[in-house]
Amino acid sequence: MDLIDGLRHVVGADHVLTAEADCAPYLTDWRRRYVGRAQAVVLPGDTAQVAAVVARCARDGVPIVPQGGNTGLVGGATPDASGRAVVVAMRRLDRIRAIDAANETITAEAGCVLRSVQAAALDRGLLFPLSLAAEGSCTIGGNLSTNAGGTQVLRYGNARELVLGLEVVLPDGRVWDGLRGLRKDNTGYDLKQLFIGAEGTLGLICAATLRLFPAPRAQVTAFAATASLERAATLLARLRASAGATLTAFEVMSASCLDLLRTEYPGLRQPFAGGAAAPAWSILVELSDPDSEAHAIGVLERALDAALAEGVVDDVAVAQSGADSASMWRLRETIPEAQTRAGGNVKHDISLPVSRIPEFVANTNARLLQEFAWLEPITFGHLGDGNLHYNIGVHDRSDLERLAANQERINRLVHDAVHAAGGSISAEHGLGQLKRDDIARYKSDIELQLMARIKHALDPDDIMNPGKVIPAR
Amino acid sequence: MDLIDGLRHVVGADHVLTAEADCAPYLTDWRRRYVGRAQAVVLPGDTAQVAAVVARCARDGVPIVPQGGNTGLVGGATPDASGRAVVVAMRRLDRIRAIDAANETITAEAGCVLRSVQAAALDRGLLFPLSLAAEGSCTIGGNLSTNAGGTQVLRYGNARELVLGLEVVLPDGRVWDGLRGLRKDNTGYDLKQLFIGAEGTLGLICAATLRLFPAPRAQVTAFAATASLERAATLLARLRASAGATLTAFEVMSASCLDLLRTEYPGLRQPFAGGAAAPAWSILVELSDPDSEAHAIGVLERALDAALAEGVVDDVAVAQSGADSASMWRLRETIPEAQTRAGGNVKHDISLPVSRIPEFVANTNARLLQEFAWLEPITFGHLGDGNLHYNIGVHDRSDLERLAANQERINRLVHDAVHAAGGSISAEHGLGQLKRDDIARYKSDIELQLMARIKHALDPDDIMNPGKVIPAR
Repeated sequence: MDLIDGLRHVVGADHVLTAEADCAPYLTDWRRRYVGRAQAVVLPGDTAQVAAVVARCARDGVPIVPQGGNTGLVGGATPDASGRAVVVAMRRLDRIRAIDAANETITAEAGCVLRSVQAAALDRGLLFPLSLAAEGSCTIGGNLSTNAGGTQVLRYGNARELVLGLEVVLPDGRVWDGLRGLRKDNTGYDLKQLFIGAEGTLGLICAATLRLFPAPRAQVTAFAATASLERAATLLARLRASAGATLTAFEVMSASCLDLLRTEYPGLRQPFAGGAAAPAWSILVELSDPDSEAHAIGVLERALDAALAEGVVDDVAVAQSGADSASMWRLRETIPEAQTRAGGNVKHDISLPVSRIPEFVANTNARLLQEFAWLEPITFGHLGDGNLHYNIGVHDRSDLERLAANQERINRLVHDAVHAAGGSISAEHGLGQLKRDDIARYKSDIELQLMARIKHALDPDDIMNPGKVIPAR
Repeated sequence: MDLIDGLRHVVGADHVLTAEADCAPYLTDWRRRYVGRAQAVVLPGDTAQVAAVVARCARDGVPIVPQGGNTGLVGGATPDASGRAVVVAMRRLDRIRAIDAANETITAEAGCVLRSVQAAALDRGLLFPLSLAAEGSCTIGGNLSTNAGGTQVLRYGNARELVLGLEVVLPDGRVWDGLRGLRKDNTGYDLKQLFIGAEGTLGLICAATLRLFPAPRAQVTAFAATASLERAATLLARLRASAGATLTAFEVMSASCLDLLRTEYPGLRQPFAGGAAAPAWSILVELSDPDSEAHAIGVLERALDAALAEGVVDDVAVAQSGADSASMWRLRETIPEAQTRAGGNVKHDISLPVSRIPEFVANTNARLLQEFAWLEPITFGHLGDGNLHYNIGVHDRSDLERLAANQERINRLVHDAVHAAGGSISAEHGLGQLKRDDIARYKSDIELQLMARIKHALDPDDIMNPGKVIPAR
């Protein structure tokens, strides 16, 4: 039986796509930077089928490209142009297998859309805290394979910290059942850590047991205006101290972000608009309180009043309603779309020690503008996690062409500066195809060798998502 | 140059111990279950010396046994009887290299005693939350190598969750510098996860960058009495919901624990003593509040009053002072010593999904007592993490001998029951020598093979702490 017939035998003919039109949506990434080819796109229905598909491909040495919601930003789920690969699309594995409320865990299959996991937890009064822009279409398998971040990392950690157990199909087609719901387990190497954030290069995550938390009773949101990132960091430290773990978001936005929103989305209400120029930095703060709204508002107002009195911030606006909160969040979340409307930009998903961010932004802005006076840094992100979306746009659309022409030089300048400051060139998006060769520049030989050894130990024939993560030799 | 001269050349003659009396303290474990032999005990003074020592040993194929504070409970830092090994004692690497208050991180060398790291953080108003009984003598390197747990896991996670970066000497003597202070970094495999909890079998941790947190403003402690573990789990769920992350401890103790304390330490004040029998289960609750003591007391009293009114608990005592709190904690922390005074016991450091604990304890107690009517389960631990110290003592000292004689049978019965309930036979102590062969019974072949492949990929010559963690073939 040839490969395609073999795959049809495993998953049923309806679930093996080979026609160009059927395959097309699976062969282009979300940002349309990459277009690949494949022998087939296979949609298995359960873990046993995934295992059989992988075993069948392994037998012929056929590369496997796992795919979840196909919302990744680095081409990690798109096959190469050779046409040799089989894309294994996981979306039919979409069952919530179990919720254990007393243990505060949920066991979900890899193809579950993130929002459906959040909803299943909330039905039991529990919170699955992973939250990010693509949550309506990204899948748990993709979230774990990329160790997704998002807006709640400050409180709950990255996707990695939310995983207690995994079920993984290994590159030889065997199933590792590591679906444990334990918060403490020191019986040997913690194997699940290998597969989380490996972008499908070491095995194929089929299901996970995830931590849940009690849903907070109240959420309170506020905007604050400040003159510098140093002061924003001061406010962060104060709120970390006085609000503790109830501080669930601390997002910053440069004046250029707010200006861009005003141009592209004039209908969005801005807290400090009133005709005046946007403040140098706007801060979005969210507290999630297990006690009461009154307590959260009290903590927030005391901290913000003190910060106002001491000149740490220049203006504050506390949301007076759920609608107020939603409109504050909408500002933050609309920035990427506003950038797209404005004609595109050069994106950098970076992280740094929080202490080094103010200096990094000042120096890197200056260096960029010295070389390219027509650029405009659009800086926003999760200051609480040291994670900035340090994106570079233009003041004037007529400069878009030279922005594109200089993209590589801009990337290099920014990433060199990140590296010099002890930072990461990919905070939450992963490496995929986009950045796999960049890291060869920034990682030590030892670290690259260790990665290669792990890859070889688990996937000696380089079957699993080849051409991703590990730099080409 | 022979090995010993070579090592003297690297670290100085004073720091290479070979005389029997000098070496003895390094060759016996804390519980005195294991006594090993070694060619030498070497005390390097910095990472470069550690690297040179490892390289020198590797050249001759000499096994290396890393050792921190030598407080482990499973013989993980004790060499075997062959006398071939070199013990590398890390305690001279005891510098705090940096504290970055704005980034809430500390970089400490492996030989730093846990308490000194806590103290260095507190000097800056920050908390390093790892806390366990041995904190006055255990070291950070050992804590990370065993992925230590302790009393604050419920809020802050295991040692693993507190690590942002590592510096590791690899089995070939090269240094991997992974000392990053980043909360988000997705640039390839997360290599530090390999070394955490590996008990020194994959490399030698020399330094770590660790997360800090703002120190809480107030801590409030209470004792509660309840009739069953089911009700204790109900109280846990309620406090998780109403106190959120301010719930920093939720410890349970069986009546037999309190009875034992009354016998062995009659001077210790017991909250519900008053001549009556100890309640079936006592619960120690701690809230750590960033806001105020008044708020913490309010949250705690509201939750406990409601629990009393609904019969979830039968009695409560809220600490009225720091001294009150300390005496409550002393009860909990004295249980192990009381067990030692009582003549010893068969220890089990197990974890289970919280939801399965009440049934597990009831059934396993019944099975044990059916077979050995003279046993007395002494059950205590971190219910919030699903981690019990399910220890087995005797009512009558005259039964100590048959307890020792039946130790293996008791272990087997308990661990089989743990495994059947989806639990772990080593929640926070690791495997070391003590449990390395036990896991061959409970782990799948696939998992054991994956562990062996990782070991081989990083340490192909089996130099690093051989005879630990990985089961013998």
